[in-house]
Amino acid sequence: MIAPRQWMAALDVEGVLTPEVWIAVAEATGIDFLRRTTREEPDYESLMDKRLAVLADNGISMSQIAAVISGLEPLEGARAFLDELRSRTPVVLLSDTFEQFGQPLMRLLGWPLLLCHRLEVAQDRITGYRLRMTDQKVQAVRAFRSLNYRVVAVGDAYNDLSMLAAADAGILFRPPAPLAARIGQYPQCTEYDELLRLIAEAMDSETPGLEAP
Amino acid sequence: MIAPRQWMAALDVEGVLTPEVWIAVAEATGIDFLRRTTREEPDYESLMDKRLAVLADNGISMSQIAAVISGLEPLEGARAFLDELRSRTPVVLLSDTFEQFGQPLMRLLGWPLLLCHRLEVAQDRITGYRLRMTDQKVQAVRAFRSLNYRVVAVGDAYNDLSMLAAADAGILFRPPAPLAARIGQYPQCTEYDELLRLIAEAMDSETPGLEAP
Repeated sequence: MIAPRQWMAALDVEGVLTPEVWIAVAEATGIDFLRRTTREEPDYESLMDKRLAVLADNGISMSQIAAVISGLEPLEGARAFLDELRSRTPVVLLSDTFEQFGQPLMRLLGWPLLLCHRLEVAQDRITGYRLRMTDQKVQAVRAFRSLNYRVVAVGDAYNDLSMLAAADAGILFRPPAPLAARIGQYPQCTEYDELLRLIAEAMDSETPGLEAP
Repeated sequence: MIAPRQWMAALDVEGVLTPEVWIAVAEATGIDFLRRTTREEPDYESLMDKRLAVLADNGISMSQIAAVISGLEPLEGARAFLDELRSRTPVVLLSDTFEQFGQPLMRLLGWPLLLCHRLEVAQDRITGYRLRMTDQKVQAVRAFRSLNYRVVAVGDAYNDLSMLAAADAGILFRPPAPLAARIGQYPQCTEYDELLRLIAEAMDSETPGLEAP
């Protein structure tokens, strides 16, 4: 039996539900370099290599970083938003963070499913990292679409645009001003109640979405 | 960068985390036919067609069924098991149930991600159902493997065997005696603490798992 596809939501994490972990680490350690993001260094793997080199140079341990992350909380209202959304539709979180960074925040968010990468840790030092796959947000959206879900994707930054393009519907949440100005094809909002409304609108829309993969 | 895959867990729902919904509906309505499962009727679509015909013949509404499901609780210990497992590894729930049946139980389980099907409801009657796709448990396991996860799958019944075979590791939880006797290749257990231990063992094993798809 072939039937219209069911919907689900795919959410970016940092900037949508939680603060930026590396910014928090930069503030806690006083290492300014760690403020750099893919906005300044578009090549994520190059950025990560530099971040790990800086951590090693400064003797920062995994426990120190874990302590910083344990002090973080989800963005205000994020947990209530996520619970409400999960009561309405299946939700998956997609992030280029690492399991070790995500875990304390996922606990505070009520253990949603987070697909991300993993750090290599030895003797309390971050010795490397493993990208589970490149472009994993896009690939995850495609995989859920191949399971006959329609996907509404929510992101906040340039590096989410390919995920939004791969989804049946995309929404920008609190995008930086230059992005908000340049990208006109996606609805945008800054508050969670608006985001719930935009997601519901996307799912109710009569537009056919992308072709099935 | 190519690296070993990360692990996640894929759990069947009814019999592993929750009671069988149709059995509960059979008990609440006194309609004995609704006790039939895929054990007696191996063709799931044929079984569903008959179930819906019996509901229609007996004038059972969606609200009546929803009331029965609202009275159900997860199996004893299931929520604590699921929370503990989600603190260790990403978890997805795979079931051939329907969103309308699953939702009240997912609330009680803390909103894990459930991939399933959907009922067509009109004027408080179940008028049909939509299989999101056939063999969706197997296809979901394959999709997560294509995202470079290794998957340990947990099921309880004959209809889970193809999912277990598609996963990198499989575990039978509380299988019926004939299945337990016949299927020797998967570890089996009946308690959640054992299940946590078997999942951890599978993820720690040095066996190479299946080839990447």
